Amino acid sequence: MAGKNLPRSPLAPKTFPKLPDIAGVTLHAVETGSRYKGRRDLLLARLAPQTSIAGVFTRSTMPSAAVDLCRQNLRASRGRAGAILVNAGIANAFTGAAGAKAAQTVCQFVADAQSIAPDRVYMASTGVIGQDLDPAPLTRGITSALSGRASSWRHAAEAICTTDTFAKAASRTARLAGQTVTINMIAKGSGMIAPDMATMLAFGFTDAALPPRVLQALLTDAANQSFNAVTVDGDMSTSDTVLLCATGQKPMQGSALRSADDPRLAAFRKALVAVMQDVAIQVASDGEGAQKLMTIDVTGDADDAAARRIGLAIGNSPLVKTAVAGEDANWGRIVMAVGKSGEHADRDRLSIRIGGHQVARKGRAVAGYDERPVAKHMRGRQVHIAVDVGIGKGKSRVWACDLTHGYISINADYRS
Amino acid sequence: MAGKNLPRSPLAPKTFPKLPDIAGVTLHAVETGSRYKGRRDLLLARLAPQTSIAGVFTRSTMPSAAVDLCRQNLRASRGRAGAILVNAGIANAFTGAAGAKAAQTVCQFVADAQSIAPDRVYMASTGVIGQDLDPAPLTRGITSALSGRASSWRHAAEAICTTDTFAKAASRTARLAGQTVTINMIAKGSGMIAPDMATMLAFGFTDAALPPRVLQALLTDAANQSFNAVTVDGDMSTSDTVLLCATGQKPMQGSALRSADDPRLAAFRKALVAVMQDVAIQVASDGEGAQKLMTIDVTGDADDAAARRIGLAIGNSPLVKTAVAGEDANWGRIVMAVGKSGEHADRDRLSIRIGGHQVARKGRAVAGYDERPVAKHMRGRQVHIAVDVGIGKGKSRVWACDLTHGYISINADYRS
Repeated sequence: MAGKNLPRSPLAPKTFPKLPDIAGVTLHAVETGSRYKGRRDLLLARLAPQTSIAGVFTRSTMPSAAVDLCRQNLRASRGRAGAILVNAGIANAFTGAAGAKAAQTVCQFVADAQSIAPDRVYMASTGVIGQDLDPAPLTRGITSALSGRASSWRHAAEAICTTDTFAKAASRTARLAGQTVTINMIAKGSGMIAPDMATMLAFGFTDAALPPRVLQALLTDAANQSFNAVTVDGDMSTSDTVLLCATGQKPMQGSALRSADDPRLAAFRKALVAVMQDVAIQVASDGEGAQKLMTIDVTGDADDAAARRIGLAIGNSPLVKTAVAGEDANWGRIVMAVGKSGEHADRDRLSIRIGGHQVARKGRAVAGYDERPVAKHMRGRQVHIAVDVGIGKGKSRVWACDLTHGYISINADYRS
Repeated sequence: MAGKNLPRSPLAPKTFPKLPDIAGVTLHAVETGSRYKGRRDLLLARLAPQTSIAGVFTRSTMPSAAVDLCRQNLRASRGRAGAILVNAGIANAFTGAAGAKAAQTVCQFVADAQSIAPDRVYMASTGVIGQDLDPAPLTRGITSALSGRASSWRHAAEAICTTDTFAKAASRTARLAGQTVTINMIAKGSGMIAPDMATMLAFGFTDAALPPRVLQALLTDAANQSFNAVTVDGDMSTSDTVLLCATGQKPMQGSALRSADDPRLAAFRKALVAVMQDVAIQVASDGEGAQKLMTIDVTGDADDAAARRIGLAIGNSPLVKTAVAGEDANWGRIVMAVGKSGEHADRDRLSIRIGGHQVARKGRAVAGYDERPVAKHMRGRQVHIAVDVGIGKGKSRVWACDLTHGYISINADYRS
């Protein structure tokens, strides 16, 4: 975890990106001393009145107290938000009624301090499962946050980290009905990363004016092309949360938006997918122990969803991941992973490329296969695998990382 | 792989078990020099005329040529066998029409040499995927086998190994309609092990007289309680094969058996499950890099199949497996794995025991939880995890191993 001073991932971006201000969003990142010492571990994001919010959450049947609370508040407030609170260190998952009460206590404190309805306060918690969350250090942290100055995007992104070796963020702009709007997103995640949801917390903010229902549809769709297409270890967290807020500080010109399919949203939709893919790839790049980023393209499948499942079967396979770690062009393991995915496939039509080099075509190795250019590609930091299933037009792109000794070292003594 | 002289698994049985002769079975284990040097790598098992055979195979959509051939021959011969041939080193998977032809050539050679119908020759291949199988060294090996003396069970079990660090076998006897019959089984497997089928080859032999249809039903049922309940890495092979042969050398007294539910089969059925669980546990114990054997009991689930899926989600979770490797009583990861399984579960009724010690009950840690006895249990070689889902009466037991640096070392350079 961050406290261990793990070396920065070799796949990390060189620098933290520049994120412009978003009107209607004020960030406060503070230290509570709850579990980590000497670092910011609490983020409070204050949002302009009438901010819209949408959420996508873990599909775990063991959701954390914060996930329960977010789901309830999304319904109760009909997609409105006044604040988001994030604590790092304690997941407040599998903590029973006491856990639910602790989350409520902290959110009520935020609501009272800001004079907003409690169902407009959202919470996310990340860290160890099964330990009780003590509200006291958090409420002290909130008081300190509210009396202090606003924090930078970088400090906000750092405050939500746990085992992450670098803070993750991205930003894009888009034209929307005569305005230029901005989308910023910060995220954390490096282990317990699997799709539905990729285990992560991510918080997006835009100054666009979007009704909650439209915002939710845009978020769900973009999540399928980003967070739900990234995997580190196939383990799905109890706490995965992606929230997207639209402060509405740049009001639309023209008639109101009623549907996510409104053609005026085309550029915004594209920018949102780009922001979310950017941070999702950063999460894969910070996979625990990761030394190589895998980009997996699956084409020719029955449909896009089936293609994504095959891509994830490849990206999750320990044998594929260790082959990538070992820079071994052992493409037979890719065949194995396609075969185990359970998706319909025709062995005798399957083709595989690695780094653009055809290694297998229509059910067997290509004639005169020369492994040297493939082996050279695999010695790089970025490994590209392309599989054509040969049965349809569905396609998907998935990101994953290799499986190394570093993953074992980090996870065999994570908690102690 | 075996050629690497990996140290014997610390979880291996002290000695190779004593296996009695089975009337109607003659074993020949020889060296072909195909891929491994200086070790036996080909097994030919010759079977008495009218031997019954049953099979369970990988569910991979990318099955090997040998798996295709076995499935065809089971149908064509209506469950009769004259010989089984097993080669180690080359999986002959994803080798297209040439691979199918190579398998046929080798099996036809066996059929001609023994003057039996080619649809009574079964084959299994294990090793690297995607490499062509050259029939010549195998046919030379078969000639040498047939001109030589019979081999021991131990040499047979050794000849089918690849990355295995010890040869696997088990034997039981049972009373069946006035006779004492014997069941022997040999198996290989240590990586690419996942249920449906646990990635392995296993060959069982009994002198009992059982019609093919009854034998198949008994095998399928026993596989669900053994090979389909064991996992090393969640990767399913293209080549998983379990064959069970009944030579009929100890004919039944009384009326013919028509159904696997015949009460006279009770003891045989129990012995078969015991033999198959014994070798399945040996496979988990030889999981690549394994230092600890996990036994996972799931109770209180909707049905037995759901309980097995939850058990496998726990046994496959990299985070649970690394926690076990690190001797870390991080039971929150067990909650995570139950949650990600997708099976219906009620978070607030879930209970967990480790090594018999209650750690969580009804959705949270037990009051005054003392980690010390749990930590002590986890320092042993055998780790027992029990989860009660609290919603029904379904139950299942699953075996798995921990995930260690050894797994990475073995698999990051398996092929090179």
